[in-house]
Formats: sequence, C-alpha cells, structure tokens
Amino acid sequence: MPNLFYSNLIDLKRMMAEFDEHEVRHMLVLRMKPGDFLRFTDGDGKIFSGVLTEIDRKKLTSKAKIQGIESYRRRQERSLGLCIPHSRWSRMKFAIEKSVELGADLLITCRMDRSNFEVGERKIKLFVRNVIKQCETPFFPKVLNFNNLAELLDWCDENVTTLVYLSKDGVSPRKLLDSVNGGNVVLLAGPEGGFSFNELQKLLERSRGMNLGFRTLRFETALLTALIILSYEMNLLWGFEKIEG
Amino acid sequence: MPNLFYSNLIDLKRMMAEFDEHEVRHMLVLRMKPGDFLRFTDGDGKIFSGVLTEIDRKKLTSKAKIQGIESYRRRQERSLGLCIPHSRWSRMKFAIEKSVELGADLLITCRMDRSNFEVGERKIKLFVRNVIKQCETPFFPKVLNFNNLAELLDWCDENVTTLVYLSKDGVSPRKLLDSVNGGNVVLLAGPEGGFSFNELQKLLERSRGMNLGFRTLRFETALLTALIILSYEMNLLWGFEKIEG
Repeated sequence: MPNLFYSNLIDLKRMMAEFDEHEVRHMLVLRMKPGDFLRFTDGDGKIFSGVLTEIDRKKLTSKAKIQGIESYRRRQERSLGLCIPHSRWSRMKFAIEKSVELGADLLITCRMDRSNFEVGERKIKLFVRNVIKQCETPFFPKVLNFNNLAELLDWCDENVTTLVYLSKDGVSPRKLLDSVNGGNVVLLAGPEGGFSFNELQKLLERSRGMNLGFRTLRFETALLTALIILSYEMNLLWGFEKIEG
Repeated sequence: MPNLFYSNLIDLKRMMAEFDEHEVRHMLVLRMKPGDFLRFTDGDGKIFSGVLTEIDRKKLTSKAKIQGIESYRRRQERSLGLCIPHSRWSRMKFAIEKSVELGADLLITCRMDRSNFEVGERKIKLFVRNVIKQCETPFFPKVLNFNNLAELLDWCDENVTTLVYLSKDGVSPRKLLDSVNGGNVVLLAGPEGGFSFNELQKLLERSRGMNLGFRTLRFETALLTALIILSYEMNLLWGFEKIEG
C-alpha cells in the first residue's frame, strides 16, 4: 500500500495541492474522505503533509491543504540512468522496479530491432509512479521512451556524457570508469536475442562496451548488475537527506 | 525451456546415466523418446552429451548412454553465499533466481522470528534445480535450509569465514572487505519487518554488519545488491571455463 501520493499541481501561495485521476483512484480505493491526513511529493525533492479538503468521485479530482513541507537533497551530484529494451512486461517490470528502488535518475525504454513485445508508454509511466510511491522517495526519475535506437542515440548525443552498452566484447567496469571523467552515464542492454547487426554498428561508433563476465545473464539481470556496480563505483547508492522542514 | 538435464547417478565405467522422477517428468513434457539426443550435468563441473536409451512413464525412470564429456572449472577460488529469510514466495523466488544466475556458491534459506511465510524445503530445492538448468551452469550451488537463526549460526561457526548481515548500522562494503582476509563469505538479510531484537543480539556477537546506503530497499533487492557488490569486489563475476573435453 503506497504511503505517499504524488501531485504535480502545487500552489505554495495558497498552500493547496491538486491530484490527478490516477491519484484520486488510489484515494478512493483507500476509502479516503475530506479531513483525512495524507503525505505527498512533487517528485522534485519535497514531501508535503496535509489534509484532504475535497474529493470528487465523478470528476476524479481532489484537493488538499498543505500543512507541512520537508525538503530533501540527493547525497550526490553525478547521475546514472538505464535504458530498458521493450520486452516481455514481467521482465521490464522487474528492471523498472529494482532500478527505481536503487535510485536511477533516468529511466529510458526503447524499442529495439529484436524487441518481440511492445509496452505502451502510459503503462510504463504509471508503473514507475507506483513504484516510486512504494519506495517513498521524493525524487522521481525522468522517464523517456524511444521508438528505435537511432532516436535514442540522437537524444543521448545532446544529453548524455557516456553511453555504455553491455557486451562480452567490452571492457571491465573498472577500466571503463577509469576513462570516464565525471558527467552522467546511461546503461543500455539489448533485448532477448541481443542487438541487431545494424544496432551494434551504431553502438560501436557512439558508445562504450562494458563486460560483466562470462556467465549467461538474462537482460534484466545484466542491466541491474551493471547498475549496481556503477552506482557503487560512482558512489551513488547513498540516497537523499533532509535539508529543512 | 531448459536445455540441460541433471543426473546424480552417473556411471563412468559403463558410460550410462540415470535420471530421477523430476527430470523424467520434464522429458515427458518435452515428448522425448529413446534415441533422442540430450545434454545433462552432474552439477559438479561436468556437462555430458548422450542419447536417451529408455524412458518409463509409469516408474518415472530413464537412462541415457553417455557419448561426450566436457569439464569446466570455476574462474575463482573464493566463494560467496547468501541466506534468504523465509518470506513471500514471489520474493524468495526472485532472490533465488537472480543469485543462482549470478553464480552464488551457497544458497541458504532460514526461518526468522519475523518470517510471516514458510516455504517447504522440497519446493525450494526443485526451484533451484530449474533455475540452474535454465542458466546452463555445470555447477550447482549447495542448498541448505535452517529452522531458525541459532541453527544457522551454529552451522556457520564451522563452515563460514565471515558472516555478514545487512544493517544501516554496518560499515561500507569496501571497509568490510578490507578487514576480511580470504575465506568464504555468507550474506544475510532480515525478512520484511527486519530481525527481531533477539536475533540482532546474536548477530552482533557472531557476525559483521554491512550498510548499503540510506535508501529503503526491499529485503530481496538489498540481498541482491550486496551479492553483486561483493561478487564484484571479490572478483567472482567471471563464471567458469572449459578445461577439457
């Protein structure tokens, strides 16, 4: 059961917050009513406490009066993200859930040439929101979806310092990190069946290969293993801390 | 679909192998019949190829003639295991599956004071066997089950160099490993709800605490994160290699 709601409509002058359809449905499941106490986040470092003032089960809207504000900051500056290939939902879910729990800052999904499944962007984003609420983190990762590797690479050119793809031909994590000076890192794995020849050629030109060993790992295990090792080496596992409120 | 069967009855003089009920059921599901080619492991570093000579669907027995033998060795000497507290099966399953995939040498399950669920030892062992077959590893981890922490600690006293439990009061992985000189390591996490006061007192006396950061991780995510970090630091991720055959 989530203990934290999310609001993207927060009015600090009037100390009021509004909730969208998805959050209101959750409140209705919990049989919440005006007067009930609740906690919610803006996904950007703040956790609010307040009281529900109205809830409309037809329009699926609700409002709360803000009573307290806590502010948090991340314990680190650098950021690490991952790109999950479209694949069987049970395996994508696992990769999303665990990477949100571990504090990835950026979650990308991308349809690859050998993706046998495709999951709707809306479903992915709602699932991410639910996981975040369960983790009670005040920081939401950025969530993006691309239709193919070319689109992803174009976006990375402008936004990512180092793009790393998992490959048996790559270098060890330590060797890779020795040659990366600061900036943000995004990790990428192929779907079941791996990258296509075409994709591999693009990746060879524009990204770095990293090898996690000679075991056969499922793509989601490999992505998570890489995420944990790089989080550890980049000192990103420490989470966030309260700064005021 | 598993590509590798398991046999614990291998007669190298006669070059014959026998399979137990569990494997025969699998063969029947795959509609295998005498004359069919198959691969199987002894779980101790060998992978055999051979031909099925008989399969009895009533007695649930089958035999194969061995035609080829490949031998493998681990790429490392040290070993790392983990202890999964009895808990909801979906979460235990996840921890077992991923740790087998990542090559943990020892898999212990233990009922803790705050375990709300209990899973039968037979179910755990069969699941481990299925995961191993899917990973196609020729090395089976040792699988043990204990009824409470006291039993586990007694076993560890004789068999484990360093027992590490996950705790916010512990030291960082690097600091912990700096003080561990060789030998094997077993990782332990509490169930949902954590260790009991009684258990914590026992752990304080007989094991070392390790802290993974200030995020709230589910127990299975914490165990897996610790396993990956220690595997990485202890250089255990590299798997196995063929030595002959």
